[in-house]
Amino acid sequence: MSLPRIAVDAMGGDEGVRTMIEGAALARRDHDKFEFLLVGDQKRIEAALEDHPNMRGASEILHCEDVISGDEQPSRAIRRAKTTSMGLAVNAVKEGAAGAAVSAGNTGALMAMSKLSLRTMPGIDRPALAALLPTLEQHDVVMLDLGANTEADARNLVQFAVMGAAYSRIVNDFEKPVVRLLNIGTEQIKGTEALRDAAARLTEANEEGGLDLTFDGFVESDKINRGETHVVVTDGFSGNIALKAIEGSARFVTDLLRQAFTSSLRSKIGFLVSRPATELLRHHLDPNNHNGAVFLGLNGVVVKSHGSATAKGVAHAVNVAARLLEENLTQRIADNLAELGEAALSSNGNGAASAAGSEAAE
Amino acid sequence: MSLPRIAVDAMGGDEGVRTMIEGAALARRDHDKFEFLLVGDQKRIEAALEDHPNMRGASEILHCEDVISGDEQPSRAIRRAKTTSMGLAVNAVKEGAAGAAVSAGNTGALMAMSKLSLRTMPGIDRPALAALLPTLEQHDVVMLDLGANTEADARNLVQFAVMGAAYSRIVNDFEKPVVRLLNIGTEQIKGTEALRDAAARLTEANEEGGLDLTFDGFVESDKINRGETHVVVTDGFSGNIALKAIEGSARFVTDLLRQAFTSSLRSKIGFLVSRPATELLRHHLDPNNHNGAVFLGLNGVVVKSHGSATAKGVAHAVNVAARLLEENLTQRIADNLAELGEAALSSNGNGAASAAGSEAAE
Repeated sequence: MSLPRIAVDAMGGDEGVRTMIEGAALARRDHDKFEFLLVGDQKRIEAALEDHPNMRGASEILHCEDVISGDEQPSRAIRRAKTTSMGLAVNAVKEGAAGAAVSAGNTGALMAMSKLSLRTMPGIDRPALAALLPTLEQHDVVMLDLGANTEADARNLVQFAVMGAAYSRIVNDFEKPVVRLLNIGTEQIKGTEALRDAAARLTEANEEGGLDLTFDGFVESDKINRGETHVVVTDGFSGNIALKAIEGSARFVTDLLRQAFTSSLRSKIGFLVSRPATELLRHHLDPNNHNGAVFLGLNGVVVKSHGSATAKGVAHAVNVAARLLEENLTQRIADNLAELGEAALSSNGNGAASAAGSEAAE
Repeated sequence: MSLPRIAVDAMGGDEGVRTMIEGAALARRDHDKFEFLLVGDQKRIEAALEDHPNMRGASEILHCEDVISGDEQPSRAIRRAKTTSMGLAVNAVKEGAAGAAVSAGNTGALMAMSKLSLRTMPGIDRPALAALLPTLEQHDVVMLDLGANTEADARNLVQFAVMGAAYSRIVNDFEKPVVRLLNIGTEQIKGTEALRDAAARLTEANEEGGLDLTFDGFVESDKINRGETHVVVTDGFSGNIALKAIEGSARFVTDLLRQAFTSSLRSKIGFLVSRPATELLRHHLDPNNHNGAVFLGLNGVVVKSHGSATAKGVAHAVNVAARLLEENLTQRIADNLAELGEAALSSNGNGAASAAGSEAAE
C-alpha cells in the first residue's frame, strides 16, 4: 500500500516547476530512501531535473499538461481530476502508485479532489486541514481544522482532537499531547453548544483512559503561540480566521519594525549591528519553515504546500509527507479511534454532554 | 438627556481606584468641559482626588463599597446592579445623571448590566462590542462584534455594519467608511449563509444609496491591520477569536524580538542604538493607546476599559466616551438606521439574499 514514494504536483503553485523539483530534491537529502512521482509537463520537469543529480533514478515522470488554476471553483476542478497534475497526483495515492501527494495548488480544489478520490477513513466523518505553527517553546503547535469545514459539530471536533493528537505525537514525540478546544473564554459555559458538548465528551473519554492525549479544556486564541497547548482544535471557519489573524498580525508587527528601523540613520545603524538577532527572528517566523498543511482523516496522506513557498518551503512540505508516511499516520489514527469509547463519537450527546449544553447561560 | 458628564466605575479593573481617577483626570485635560460622577468607595476616591486639582469642582462622588469581581457570572452580577460600582455607574446613564459610563470591570457582567438597564435602541436587535485596532495607516480600524453575541444572523450583521460605520465616521472622519464582512475568503460563495445573506443585503442597500458607507464585500483576517478596511464586521465569536489572535501574535513577535535582542552583547548594543525606533513601535502597539471598547446599540454610551489598563489607557477610554457623547453617537446610529431600506433589515432574506444563500456550493 504505502510505497515510500511521494507524488508531487509539479505544476501547482505560483513559483513553477523548478521550485517544486528543487524542493523535492532538497527534501530527498533528509529522506534518501524516498522516491518521487513527478506529475506535470515532461519537458519542463526534465529540464528542472538536470540541476538535481540526486533525483535521477529516484523519480518517475507522469506527463500531463493541464493544471488547476488558483481561482478555479472546487466543483469545476473535480471534473478535471483525470487530466490535471493535481488530480493525477492525488489519484496516484488512491491507486497505490504513491503513498502521499504534495501540491502547492488551489486549496479548495485539492480538498475536494482528495475527499472524492481517497474518501474519509473509517470512523471519520469529515477530514480536517492541520498545520504546524511556531511557538515560544522548541516545539510547534498543531492546529486544525483550518478551513476544510465551515462548520463542525461535537462529534467532528472529537475526531479532530484524535487526529490532531496523532499528528502531534509524530512531529513532536509527545506521548500524550495537551489538546484544547479553541474558544472565546476558558470557563465551561463559554462558546457554542458544539464546543461545550465536545469538551464534555473529551473530558469523559479522558477520564475513562481511552485517549492517548491530555484534554485540558478551552484555550483562547491569544495563547495559541505560547507553546503550552500542543494541539488546538476548532472548526474550519474559526481556525481559518485565527490562523490568518496570526499571520497578518505577525506581518503587521514586522512591517512596523521595518518602518521603524528605516526611519533614521541612527536606527539603520542599530539595525545593522543587531542584524544577527533579527535574522534569528526572521528565521523563526519564516512561513517556509512551517510549510505543509495536512489533510487528516483521508485514506492516504495529502499535503498542501503554500502557493508562494520557496524551494526550502516545498522541501519542508515534502518532508512532512515523508515523515507521516514513515510513521504510518493513517493507521495510527485508525488505532486511536478504535480505542475511543462509543459515547464520545455518538451523534447525540451522552448524559454529561447534554447537561453541559443545557446549562449554557451565556 | 445627555449631560456632558461621565460616570466612572472607580472600583472595577485590576489597577485600583487611583488609576481610574488619574485616568479621568488625564482625560479631562482634553475635554475640560466634561464632568464626572465617580462611583465607588468615597474615602479612597477622595484620597485619589487629592493629587488631581483639575478634578475638583468637576466631580461628584457616588459612594458604594460593593464591587463586581473579575470572574463573577453575568447572571449573578445583574442581581447586584443596585449595590455595585459597575451597576450604579450604568444606572446613572439610564437615569440621565450621566451621558456615558466607563468601567474596567468584568466584560460579561458589564454587557449584561448595560443591556438590562439601558436596553437596545429602536431598530437594533442586539448590541455589539466595538474596538479600535491599529493599522499601517494613520487611522484605526473599527472591529465589531468582539464578543457580545456568540452568534449573529444576517440582520444582526447589517445592524453591526451601520453602527460600526457611525463609530468610524466619528473617530476617523471618513464620510463613507469602507465596511467589509470578516470571512475565510473573498469570493462570494465563501463562508456561512448568514455572511452571504448579509453581504447581499448590504450590497443592495448600498446600490440603492441608503447607506452612509461603502460596503465592499469580504475581508480575510490577515488584512484587518492593513488599513484598507475602515470597519470590519463579524459575529462575536469570530471577532473575539480574531482580536485575541492578533493580540497574541503581536505579543509573540515582540517576545521573540526581545529574546533576539538580548541574545548577545552585540545585539544588545544594536538595540540601544536603535531604541528611538523600537520605542515608536512600542507606542504604536501599546494597547493603552487603543483602549476603550464600546457597546454599540444601547440607549446610552458604555465604554469598557481594559482591566489592566494604565492611567493613560483609562484616559483613552474616557476620551472615547467623551467623544461619542459630543458627537451624539446614539442619535446618529438612529438616523442611519432610519435611512436603511426595510429589505436590508427584514428577518427573512429578500430575493437577492436568498438566491446568494442557496447557491452556496462550498
